[in-house]
Amino acid sequence: MIKKIDHIGIAVNNISEQLVYYRDILGLPFVGEEEVQNQQVKVAMFQAGEIRIELLEATSETSPIAKFIAKKGEGIHHIAYHSDNIQNDLDNAKEQRIRLINETPQQGADNKKIAFMHPKSTFGVLTELCSEE
Amino acid sequence: MIKKIDHIGIAVNNISEQLVYYRDILGLPFVGEEEVQNQQVKVAMFQAGEIRIELLEATSETSPIAKFIAKKGEGIHHIAYHSDNIQNDLDNAKEQRIRLINETPQQGADNKKIAFMHPKSTFGVLTELCSEE
Repeated sequence: MIKKIDHIGIAVNNISEQLVYYRDILGLPFVGEEEVQNQQVKVAMFQAGEIRIELLEATSETSPIAKFIAKKGEGIHHIAYHSDNIQNDLDNAKEQRIRLINETPQQGADNKKIAFMHPKSTFGVLTELCSEE
Repeated sequence: MIKKIDHIGIAVNNISEQLVYYRDILGLPFVGEEEVQNQQVKVAMFQAGEIRIELLEATSETSPIAKFIAKKGEGIHHIAYHSDNIQNDLDNAKEQRIRLINETPQQGADNKKIAFMHPKSTFGVLTELCSEE
C-alpha cells in the first residue's frame, strides 16, 4: 500500500530553459541532474517538501517522453507513488484488474526501482510505483 | 517562495467510480468531499503523505473541469504549491513575466485561498498557488 508520493514527472522540451521557473520563480531547491538510459531521458530534480519535481527531457526521438510531447505537448507526464514493496504492490494492482506497463520493476532515476501502470486502467493518469533498491 | 506541494488536482468524470482505485488499490486515506461553487466542481480529497490528491468532478457543463475533459480527457489537471504569502508570490511571478489567470486569490476547496498561473507561461503545467486563509 502507498503512503506518500515520491515525485511528479513533467515532460519538457528542454530542461535548461525551465531552470529559471522552477529554481528562481517557484524557488524550489535544485537537487541534481542525471541521464536514465533505459528510459531515454535526462532528468532534472527539484525538491518540494517531501516530494520531488522531475523534469524529463527526451534523449532520443524514440523516447516515451518525445512521443508524449509530440502527441500532447509539454506538461505533467506522471505521478509516482513511493512503495515499500513494489513487486507486491504491482501484483496486488494486477489482481485488481489494473493493467501494468511493467510487470516487474525497472531501473529508474535516483537509483530507484520503478514500474508503470497503464493510464487506460487508472482513469487517464499515468501512474508509477517506485522504491529504493 | 514555495516550500512544498499542497495537492495534485485530477480531472475526473465521476468521483464515485474512482474511489476503489484511490482508496483500496493505492490505499490512500479518504479525507472528505466538498463542493466548490465558484469553481463549479465537486472535490474528493485523499491524503498521500504531506500532500493530497484532489479528484475534481464538474458540477456544470461550463465548469473548467468539464472543458478540460472535453478537450483532453480525464487526467492530471494541475499542481498546487503551498504558499505562505500568496499575493506576494503572485506579484513576484507576474514581475517575472508569468501570466496569471487570477491576479488576486479566490476561494478554493478546504477553506483555502487559491490562484492559478496560466500553463502557456509555465511550460504546459497548469499551476496553482494556495494558502490557508
